[in-house]
Parts: sequence; C-alpha cells; structure tokens
Amino acid sequence: MNKKSPIAIFDSGIGGLTVAKKIHCLLPGEKIIYFGDTARVPYGTKSPETIRQYAIQIAGFLTRFDPKLIVIACHSVSSLGRKFLENRFSKYHFVDVIHPSIEEAINITKNKKIGVIGTPATIASGRYPEIIRKIDRKMCVYQASCPLLVPLVEEGWFKGDVTEAVLEYYISDLLKKKIDTLILGCTHYPMLKKTIQKIVGNSVNLVDASDATARKVKFFIIKNALSNSYKRKFPTLYFSDLPEYRKKIMNRFWKTDNFMIKKINIERSFNV
Amino acid sequence: MNKKSPIAIFDSGIGGLTVAKKIHCLLPGEKIIYFGDTARVPYGTKSPETIRQYAIQIAGFLTRFDPKLIVIACHSVSSLGRKFLENRFSKYHFVDVIHPSIEEAINITKNKKIGVIGTPATIASGRYPEIIRKIDRKMCVYQASCPLLVPLVEEGWFKGDVTEAVLEYYISDLLKKKIDTLILGCTHYPMLKKTIQKIVGNSVNLVDASDATARKVKFFIIKNALSNSYKRKFPTLYFSDLPEYRKKIMNRFWKTDNFMIKKINIERSFNV
Repeated sequence: MNKKSPIAIFDSGIGGLTVAKKIHCLLPGEKIIYFGDTARVPYGTKSPETIRQYAIQIAGFLTRFDPKLIVIACHSVSSLGRKFLENRFSKYHFVDVIHPSIEEAINITKNKKIGVIGTPATIASGRYPEIIRKIDRKMCVYQASCPLLVPLVEEGWFKGDVTEAVLEYYISDLLKKKIDTLILGCTHYPMLKKTIQKIVGNSVNLVDASDATARKVKFFIIKNALSNSYKRKFPTLYFSDLPEYRKKIMNRFWKTDNFMIKKINIERSFNV
Repeated sequence: MNKKSPIAIFDSGIGGLTVAKKIHCLLPGEKIIYFGDTARVPYGTKSPETIRQYAIQIAGFLTRFDPKLIVIACHSVSSLGRKFLENRFSKYHFVDVIHPSIEEAINITKNKKIGVIGTPATIASGRYPEIIRKIDRKMCVYQASCPLLVPLVEEGWFKGDVTEAVLEYYISDLLKKKIDTLILGCTHYPMLKKTIQKIVGNSVNLVDASDATARKVKFFIIKNALSNSYKRKFPTLYFSDLPEYRKKIMNRFWKTDNFMIKKINIERSFNV
C-alpha cells in the first residue's frame, strides 16, 4: 500500500458525502476520490443481485486509482455486497458503514436494546441483528424499514409537521420496545438527527454512521502508517449523472465550491 | 405493420402499469409486452441525457418483439425523449402520455387555467406549457414539481394526514391561480386521485393520463385497422430488477396473478 494513494469512497448517490466530509475533516492531508451512482440511485429499494452488480462495477472503476482504502459509504452495499467486493478485489482494503456504528452502539447501550432504522434493502438483509448478536447474544435488536426518509431528506424537509409525523410512524414501535440506542442506518439520516432526537427523546442515544466510520478510517490509516500530507485539499467527486435537481441537493450535504466534479458513464466503465 | 404484433409499453418502473392496465381493459384482444426499468428507477430526478440514454436502451430491447406500437408510459421520457426515440427508431410508431392528457385538459378547461403536477424532470422540461401554448396561446399553465409523491404512493400512503399535508404544500400555489383543470403528470398519481380531489375540491377537474392514453391507443389501433383477437390474455411483464419490496408494491398497481413476469439485464440488452 502506498501512502500517496487516495482514499476512495462510494455511495449509491450523494448521501455518502456525509461520510466523505467527516473523513476529510478528520484526515485533511488525504487525497479523496468519491463516486456517487446518481444515474441509478436509490439502491435501498433494489434487489441484492442488482446492488451487488452495481457495487462491483463501481469498485472496478475505483481500483483504477489504486486506493489505499475503499470506503463503502452506502448501507445497502455494506449490508449486501461487502463480501462480494472483498472476494472480487482481494488486493484492496474495505471499510463499510455498518460495523463502525454497531461497535459504537454496543459500547453505548446500557439495557442492551438497540434500534436500527434504514432503507428496505438494508433492513431486509438482516445484517445488523446478525452482526450484533454474533458479538453479544444478549443484545435485542429491533428494526424499522423507512422508505420515505431518503426522499424527505432530498426534498430538504429536515423538520416540520410532515417529517415528524413520518418519523413517529416509523419509530413508535421501536420506542415501545424501550430501546436506549438507535442506529441511523442510512447516510441520509444524519440530516434528520435533530428531528429524530426530538421524537425519541433525550434518553435514547443516536449513532451516526458517518462519525463512527470516519473514526474507523482514521484508525486504519494511523495503524498502518499510511498518513499522507497532500496539499491540494479539494476532493474529486465523480457522479454517473449530474441533473440540476441533484446539484441543488448536494449543497445540503457538503457546502463548498472547492470540488472537482466529473461525470462518468459507470455502465461502460467496468465489465461485471 | 402486423395485426398480430404486440403493443409494447414501457416506464421507468411500475407506475406505467396503470397505463398498461387501462390499455388491456380497452383492448382485451391485444398482446401486451411491458417493460419497467426497476433497476434504475426513478427517472424523475435524473438528467435529460441519462433519461434519453436509458429510453434508447429500452426501445432497442422492445423492438425485438416488432411491436405495432410503442407506448411511452413514463412522463419523464415522454417529456424529454420522444423525439430522440422517433429519430432512432423511425420504423416504429410511438404514443406518449403527455399529448393525450393535454388534449383532454384543453377540451375540459373553461377558464383556460390549467395546472400540471409532475416529477422534477417532467416539470423542468417545460414540455406541458410548451405544447399547450402551441395549441392555444391564450392558455395559462401553472406547474408544480412534486418529488415526494412517488415515494408516498410506493409506500401505499394514498390518503391520511401526511399525504394530505404534502399535497397541500405542493398544490396550494396552483389553487391560488384559480386553475379549473389539473393534469396528473405522472403515472403514479392516479393512485392519489381521491385525496387530490379532496384537496382541490370538486370545481377542479383532474386529468388522468392513463385514461387519456389508453383511449388514444385504442383510436390508433382502430384507425389503422390493427385490431388483434389474441386469446391468451396474460400480459408479459419484463423488469430490470425484481426485489421483494417492489413485488409487493406492484400488486397495488395491477392486482392479478395472471402475468408472465421476467427479469432482463437492460444494460447488456442493447448498445446505445
């Protein structure tokens, strides 16, 4: 592995920018390459086979930059595709967004009752309960699939009556189970953090995957003596589509004009 | 053109099934082929270039069946891609979902104030006002982009407080303009028809593209003496992805078990 190599981060769309931003803050000397599959977003309502096929195409594209680490900043791919990526690209190191938040949730919970909210694909994969209970069989895990939250965030409706009503609908059953920790299992959800905290009350701790994952990435870089001191601090963001509608939304996830933004045709970039 | 050839219908996902169902009811002797691009749905938040690229791939796939008519049952493709498809596949006849509802709206309106609701791509294309004002310059057209309606329909939230609040937010400006006709410019919206009628009141007429398009298709078939008397009445539905999540939703759009459902890899099926 080469210190000068970039850290590659990818997501189904722009949600992973919340993770990229945190990594950039914690490791300002690192060269960052981001890919968002805006031409095929969202993944959360697609099948495991399709999600894996797309993930392999993307990782194939990213390995062209010979990254020292590939961060799977997408919960659907983290749930369903990590093993496939590791088998196919065994030369590379991967960090996903699920394991770091699980470790944090297990450290935080006192009553061993953990809630998870996510997209239909992430929740249906059952990866969170599976991994958590492998670490500690006494943990109780309660999940809720929340398909409307991504569209709400993309509309910029982070608070207000509609958003609160939708959140209450999704989360009320988890609260009845007396969870004391709630994992935000989608990279869009940190934008709703304040409203979610209002709904669940202060006795429930929220686990934000972007924080946990950025710390995990920093730990990996330091542990393997891979720190870089790259001067030009503007990340390069690749997208498979760049519609006006999404450009506006992107600003909500990472406000700065200091990006290199490029469009690539991901379907043609790598044969699965 | 061959009488025995099928009518091909396509959409970005399952919304176009509302159109396919109406065509099947009006023309029960026709062989129907449907394609839904569930692997890349939705189109409404994507760029014109990407929408056109996908539309060409799909039409390329459908022409294998030598259809006597191709119905573009997707408002985003109808708005942005019809001309491209006609240039590329000049041998074939196309019907879109925009022109039929525009004709109906122009016939219905008394005060010449027409509202249109649709996805960001459809509304940003400006095709509705462009076409309407080409027919009658005195028409006033007011549009509203409604990105949350498709996710609400896919969640099955056809009514209730949240859906009403979202609809009120999107439609209130159109009502202030005193529209007397509202075009439902997306194949998902017919599922919200009752709630939309509640919000706009009985003095506003709703134009449902699926009805208007099915009538247009019937007219085309009869005018060109292309009626078929196909006995096996089960349509064949092709999808680029078949996740469990979407199978459940599909049932809301067309309730019957009498389908032939097949999955195809659209990315590989036709080179753009």
